[in-house]
Amino acid sequence: MATTLISGGTVVTATEIMDADVLIDGTKVVGLFARGGALPELVVDRVVDASGKYLFPGGVDVHTHMELPFGGTFASDSFESGSRAAAWGGTTTMIDFAVQTIGESMMAGYEAWMDKAANNCAIDYGFHMIVSDVNQQTLKEMDMLMGEGVTSFKLFMAYPGVLYSTDGQIFMAMQKAAENGSTIMMHAENGIVIDVLREQALERGQTDPIYHSLTRPPVTESEATHRAIAYAELSGAPLYVVHMSAKEALDEIAIARNRGSNIFAETCPQYLFLGWNNLKEPDFEGAKYVCSTPVRDWEQGHQDALWRGLATNDLQVVSTDHCPFCMNDHPVLGTQKRLGEGDFTKIPNGMPGVEERMRLLYHGAVGENRLSLNRFVEVTATTPAKMFGLYPRKGTIAIGSDADIIVFDPNVRTTMSVNVNHMDVDYSSYEGKEVEGRIDMVLAKGKVLIEGNQYHGAKGDGEYLRRGTNQCLI
Amino acid sequence: MATTLISGGTVVTATEIMDADVLIDGTKVVGLFARGGALPELVVDRVVDASGKYLFPGGVDVHTHMELPFGGTFASDSFESGSRAAAWGGTTTMIDFAVQTIGESMMAGYEAWMDKAANNCAIDYGFHMIVSDVNQQTLKEMDMLMGEGVTSFKLFMAYPGVLYSTDGQIFMAMQKAAENGSTIMMHAENGIVIDVLREQALERGQTDPIYHSLTRPPVTESEATHRAIAYAELSGAPLYVVHMSAKEALDEIAIARNRGSNIFAETCPQYLFLGWNNLKEPDFEGAKYVCSTPVRDWEQGHQDALWRGLATNDLQVVSTDHCPFCMNDHPVLGTQKRLGEGDFTKIPNGMPGVEERMRLLYHGAVGENRLSLNRFVEVTATTPAKMFGLYPRKGTIAIGSDADIIVFDPNVRTTMSVNVNHMDVDYSSYEGKEVEGRIDMVLAKGKVLIEGNQYHGAKGDGEYLRRGTNQCLI
Amino acid sequence: MATTLISGGTVVTATEIMDADVLIDGTKVVGLFARGGALPELVVDRVVDASGKYLFPGGVDVHTHMELPFGGTFASDSFESGSRAAAWGGTTTMIDFAVQTIGESMMAGYEAWMDKAANNCAIDYGFHMIVSDVNQQTLKEMDMLMGEGVTSFKLFMAYPGVLYSTDGQIFMAMQKAAENGSTIMMHAENGIVIDVLREQALERGQTDPIYHSLTRPPVTESEATHRAIAYAELSGAPLYVVHMSAKEALDEIAIARNRGSNIFAETCPQYLFLGWNNLKEPDFEGAKYVCSTPVRDWEQGHQDALWRGLATNDLQVVSTDHCPFCMNDHPVLGTQKRLGEGDFTKIPNGMPGVEERMRLLYHGAVGENRLSLNRFVEVTATTPAKMFGLYPRKGTIAIGSDADIIVFDPNVRTTMSVNVNHMDVDYSSYEGKEVEGRIDMVLAKGKVLIEGNQYHGAKGDGEYLRRGTNQCLI
Amino acid sequence: MATTLISGGTVVTATEIMDADVLIDGTKVVGLFARGGALPELVVDRVVDASGKYLFPGGVDVHTHMELPFGGTFASDSFESGSRAAAWGGTTTMIDFAVQTIGESMMAGYEAWMDKAANNCAIDYGFHMIVSDVNQQTLKEMDMLMGEGVTSFKLFMAYPGVLYSTDGQIFMAMQKAAENGSTIMMHAENGIVIDVLREQALERGQTDPIYHSLTRPPVTESEATHRAIAYAELSGAPLYVVHMSAKEALDEIAIARNRGSNIFAETCPQYLFLGWNNLKEPDFEGAKYVCSTPVRDWEQGHQDALWRGLATNDLQVVSTDHCPFCMNDHPVLGTQKRLGEGDFTKIPNGMPGVEERMRLLYHGAVGENRLSLNRFVEVTATTPAKMFGLYPRKGTIAIGSDADIIVFDPNVRTTMSVNVNHMDVDYSSYEGKEVEGRIDMVLAKGKVLIEGNQYHGAKGDGEYLRRGTNQCLI
Repeated sequence: MATTLISGGTVVTATEIMDADVLIDGTKVVGLFARGGALPELVVDRVVDASGKYLFPGGVDVHTHMELPFGGTFASDSFESGSRAAAWGGTTTMIDFAVQTIGESMMAGYEAWMDKAANNCAIDYGFHMIVSDVNQQTLKEMDMLMGEGVTSFKLFMAYPGVLYSTDGQIFMAMQKAAENGSTIMMHAENGIVIDVLREQALERGQTDPIYHSLTRPPVTESEATHRAIAYAELSGAPLYVVHMSAKEALDEIAIARNRGSNIFAETCPQYLFLGWNNLKEPDFEGAKYVCSTPVRDWEQGHQDALWRGLATNDLQVVSTDHCPFCMNDHPVLGTQKRLGEGDFTKIPNGMPGVEERMRLLYHGAVGENRLSLNRFVEVTATTPAKMFGLYPRKGTIAIGSDADIIVFDPNVRTTMSVNVNHMDVDYSSYEGKEVEGRIDMVLAKGKVLIEGNQYHGAKGDGEYLRRGTNQCLI
Repeated sequence: MATTLISGGTVVTATEIMDADVLIDGTKVVGLFARGGALPELVVDRVVDASGKYLFPGGVDVHTHMELPFGGTFASDSFESGSRAAAWGGTTTMIDFAVQTIGESMMAGYEAWMDKAANNCAIDYGFHMIVSDVNQQTLKEMDMLMGEGVTSFKLFMAYPGVLYSTDGQIFMAMQKAAENGSTIMMHAENGIVIDVLREQALERGQTDPIYHSLTRPPVTESEATHRAIAYAELSGAPLYVVHMSAKEALDEIAIARNRGSNIFAETCPQYLFLGWNNLKEPDFEGAKYVCSTPVRDWEQGHQDALWRGLATNDLQVVSTDHCPFCMNDHPVLGTQKRLGEGDFTKIPNGMPGVEERMRLLYHGAVGENRLSLNRFVEVTATTPAKMFGLYPRKGTIAIGSDADIIVFDPNVRTTMSVNVNHMDVDYSSYEGKEVEGRIDMVLAKGKVLIEGNQYHGAKGDGEYLRRGTNQCLI
Repeated sequence: MATTLISGGTVVTATEIMDADVLIDGTKVVGLFARGGALPELVVDRVVDASGKYLFPGGVDVHTHMELPFGGTFASDSFESGSRAAAWGGTTTMIDFAVQTIGESMMAGYEAWMDKAANNCAIDYGFHMIVSDVNQQTLKEMDMLMGEGVTSFKLFMAYPGVLYSTDGQIFMAMQKAAENGSTIMMHAENGIVIDVLREQALERGQTDPIYHSLTRPPVTESEATHRAIAYAELSGAPLYVVHMSAKEALDEIAIARNRGSNIFAETCPQYLFLGWNNLKEPDFEGAKYVCSTPVRDWEQGHQDALWRGLATNDLQVVSTDHCPFCMNDHPVLGTQKRLGEGDFTKIPNGMPGVEERMRLLYHGAVGENRLSLNRFVEVTATTPAKMFGLYPRKGTIAIGSDADIIVFDPNVRTTMSVNVNHMDVDYSSYEGKEVEGRIDMVLAKGKVLIEGNQYHGAKGDGEYLRRGTNQCLI
Repeated sequence: MATTLISGGTVVTATEIMDADVLIDGTKVVGLFARGGALPELVVDRVVDASGKYLFPGGVDVHTHMELPFGGTFASDSFESGSRAAAWGGTTTMIDFAVQTIGESMMAGYEAWMDKAANNCAIDYGFHMIVSDVNQQTLKEMDMLMGEGVTSFKLFMAYPGVLYSTDGQIFMAMQKAAENGSTIMMHAENGIVIDVLREQALERGQTDPIYHSLTRPPVTESEATHRAIAYAELSGAPLYVVHMSAKEALDEIAIARNRGSNIFAETCPQYLFLGWNNLKEPDFEGAKYVCSTPVRDWEQGHQDALWRGLATNDLQVVSTDHCPFCMNDHPVLGTQKRLGEGDFTKIPNGMPGVEERMRLLYHGAVGENRLSLNRFVEVTATTPAKMFGLYPRKGTIAIGSDADIIVFDPNVRTTMSVNVNHMDVDYSSYEGKEVEGRIDMVLAKGKVLIEGNQYHGAKGDGEYLRRGTNQCLI
């Protein structure tokens, strides 16, 4: 197998910041050592000069929705385009969501999604399973899927009639998770009350994108979060609340964690950087930012609270919830965001992001002095890998780990734009935003995927990851 | 310089658990690599076989009191005996407390303690400074001591008339710390109220050791903790609360940390393992366990709360507060604990522990399934080092770090006893306790200190550490 | 109209304790005055000597279920027998619950219950309305019922398939209440999760009465309470949580009230005096104490917390939830409690109590020194009357108020027993309990109902009360 | 004795609102009755027509400082002028503070203040005792003063070197209070930290009145409140925190009350109506509003929180802390507020208010719809009387109570101004403020003090009140 030496860089992990050369043998990191140390001369196939650069573990994005059917269309990124864009953005592992079709078996959904991804991905990938219909059959299938390396199951307290589970279904799935060691992921929004508010808004002629957020007030998120925690604590299941955006919901997480419960939560860049000012952009431009949970009024302190939550570890992970829909007609998929012109409830919920997460987070964390370098790595790579049973293979730069490495130049600034992005979507939510740092090189399993602003990978570089159970439990 | 290869072990850091060989060149770790990897054959001076063993970073004990004058006597361990015992117990760095004598300059106290330690220590050491008398002169000296690598200053809300500072003094010292970047350490007990309760107990003829704890009820700790937090938040100083024992005090820490304040706290093994049952041992045996804060009624849930605090990171560090006094006459120092026969207020406050911490914590954490291996390392080595500005030199096994390493065999059980201890004190607080694991070897700065149940070090192996500022700030 | 002078007693209201004679003219209190004062001689039809006695306002029991169809049978007390028993127990006003039959109009339910009660009651009565099926029609009927003096509407988060409303229904009913000024009463238990737990218990063969409580753990009550509060705050409706029994639920009430929300709660004597020890009585005797919410483990501090909540005003009302079922066959209704032998889920939920509330509360409050005399009156009469729009007609002894008065002798003790009770049920939950005080006389609207251990009233003394809106709002 | 009938009014008490005539015989209320009822014709000395008017209990102001020596001068109102002004404002009972002079006995202070007040007061009065120097002698004198009807003792956590008590002194006084049944009143501000901040402000040249508030930030009040609560709970003493102004301090009260502790607090009109905008008035006009605790930034929500606290009963009392100092030279006392021109620390702390409280509170509560009529009476009269052992003689309109009655016309508006006030001070803090309602008549102990905008009372109408113990304990 080929050997590579990345020399001269500063290796950053969740704990360490060390000037160390990294030796890669095939797909694995096999050595870390001081330059000019006691080692004999190494003969390697390739030496990469990383002087003055950071070496970060490749990003682990645990929340993507490639090709997701939603709202009468599909997320515009395929596994091929989306995973390649991820690689461009320094993310070398993703966990997507297989979906059970109501009325069919969960295994069928799993296999369908396995087929979609097979031989198409630029980076390694795993699946969570969306349980659309909890019943005696699916409860048994939860055990079967554990055997396939699917160790996390997502439920929805939102979207009645579509993905929604009743409280009884949620509770039974949690009991099963407590029994088989899997983790329950929760879309924690009170979809029942939200539906009442949406209908009433439409009756009042309130159809613009901003009403998407106004009909999902913070209490609809915090109430659902509180309820999910209650069920998790009663059943004994680990709970991971996805895409948190309301400070009141975060308060519920903090309280539960203080009492030692296995309660976890993620947020996403859109909640850290965007807000009502975006949703209110004129000419239906606000539709770009329609996702659920919604972006919120930053004047109410939600963004500050979320950054503080990342600092205090009340939030443990930053993922993307990548689920892009085009503003203008997609060549294949046709009308997407504009399905909701004149009726915000018909705007497909979702935003692109898989390519932008690592740079945004580095910028907000390190560039703007909110989180340490170690903490940046921890929330974007290490904890996501541990949370979903991928460590130590993924999420760190350590002996025996996969050689998933970003060579990052902290000394230049770059500008975010749809023009330089590679996702299959026609806008960037961060158009024109200047950020600290540049991703110079991305290696996955020892292979260079990105270098010299070129993609050197191939369809099928990415392999399916059988995952273990949650390694963050206390 | 000599090179050593520790081969076959499992390296554990705050983040990683990796099967890796460790290459040491002189005093530093210079390489970590996979066995049987792509490396050429290494030629080293010594190969240590660590097959089946854990390699932990040497412990960092940030709270010791060697030779401390207290209650009319001195802590029985000298820097020589105490630091050697620390090495036996797997601790390779300690931070002791230099004491300002009231009426004299703080620098004089610092120099006096530097003299006591110089050329006597088995392991590297630093100093915190106890500020006995905050005034305009000492506030200036806080800046001077920063230049000496003393970056943390301890104040007492207890012991009126001895080490006690008034609230005004505390607040002014905190304002200075906020200005110069140092960290304030706080003995958070309401000494004023405690003194009232002690006097009243003695008047009632309540003289046994148990009254030491009964006259320091939890609210005296939690009130002081709340107050110290209020002053820290108002002044902007980082605060580190020492030797926490009451769950109510821990609650105050958790609340402050949730709101993103730089508030930290440690606990000690005595609060995790001991309680009123010990203080009530007959024939004055309870005096062994007299320390402040006191050990508490475990039936009230304090121990469980402290373990949970370590798991949730509301507590960040486990130190010892090592401050031993003999039950029977010490050959040189004479009567110690028995000064308080018939009057618990005269019992010198303090317990031995520097040699026992690592084994106790491993046992309670990993052996009894309360904390992960990573978390065990984090609370005993990595975070202490970061909290007090010693990282990356200390607290981890990483490229460029000091080669401070414990070779630990998890497959055997050992029994704690004064008979196998090396501290200069005539009892163990854990006599007869059987624990998981055995420390087989201890290296400090690449040199083997402990091997084959022999001490191979020498007086003066340990050097003074100039410390940087707190690396845990958010 | 006849005039009565009650002379020599001590009048107790929510605020006052005054030695005053009470002059009644017809149905109303028309005078309060000092004995031997400046008044001319009064000529009255009757003088009652109340020397050494307390005069309390007649009790207001805002939670009774006479003749309620439940679990395949009916509550054993008719309006006639139950209201008469209430009078015996010093309660002179009751608010019962009219029930909407699913599929029929709410007005029809109201009229059916009006018919049941008409000309049958010994004491004045009003109705809350149980909304079984929230829809556009019933929302309109809520306005109509306001016109009938029904100003409070009860919803169930428990009993799926029977009385249960979905969260969307609850939220819409609350929006209507916010609009028309009515108060929402909530049975706050998570019936969905409870049903899962009940089914699982039965599958495990856990059929005894104690499992009724074990399958309704405190979190099922506190979660539902939290959720109901969230909806009430979002909609702006006043919320009154009925029959609270878990201290965790009370905590939710306290938090919401601290922030100034119009959130209220009642408890009942069974939660203040009974517990698991009762439910565990052998030979199916535990079935006597099966009601929902359940009686709980007093060792966990629920009783103490509820008494403290009454003292701190986090609980404002004590009602009975009177809903009796016989242990042995009822002459007309047949098998009741024993329907659940071998299957606790089939035990009719409910307990007798309307006759015992005032004495139990006086005993627990004043006799056992937990609440003041004023507070005893406030929680049993004044606040219930204000909460449900009956003040100043009911709930106090004041000029212009109905002459509903208890003459109470605090100087004797009495023993509670089915043998001295008048409710149409074959057991007392407090059999053999000795309590402070004796009810010597009960007047309602100036007429003597109870005197000399005789009932002097008649069917139809009690009239329907058109109620106003909640007078406790802040 | 003379008899008076107040006819046609609406009597308001803490619980009732009743159309009732009030019969007064001598000094007492002896009858309440319905107009046109069953009573024979009454022959009385005087009939007052109160048609369309409210009858409120005379106000009870439990916090006044007549003639107080402070900051080198004296409060400008004497007992004569101040008590007369109180009567004009509808307050018929006041509790002032006797002061122990340091180095002298507490009894001497009590006697000195008794002499000041004797034969000078327009209304009945009592005394709290300010304990300036807690020691074994004063602890004994606390028992002696209980015998004199002084049942409450005030301590200061502010004003080091003047009125300040150490924490040990505070704790010992509380232990004594727990033993003898008295109530501890606390000025809860952290004077030690405040003194540091004041000195630092002056060093920076910050001398204007606004710095009075800026150097007493909310945490100095909330920390002290938390600490006082801790000592009260540990000792078992009832605690009453005076003149609360910070919402953070109120939070501490609410938390303690939720757990059932006997913790109470008052606020004053200045905190409900005034703020930084007043303190910043130019040309030293801000000095008018300098008092401690300070008025605060209303934009931070303190006023709203205090009104909410009154509604939720987390605050139980509104008093004035009446302590006036003139802006211009007082004819006898000379320079007062202007002592602090150029140095805010020298501005005498205090504001007038005894005459304005009842109208301000009625306006803010009832006129502006924040509190009910009953609650207005409760916080201004009934609870103050119960809190300090004056009920049932004072604080209500009930049989046997003193005939202290305000005849209040709610149908007119009046304008507050120094020009219509009677306090001996040259400004009103509410100059030009228009309020709902007018005080038409004030009776105290049956005698008309105010009628037809004339004062009909005389020096010495007011008598000393021996008080009982706290009647609000739970």
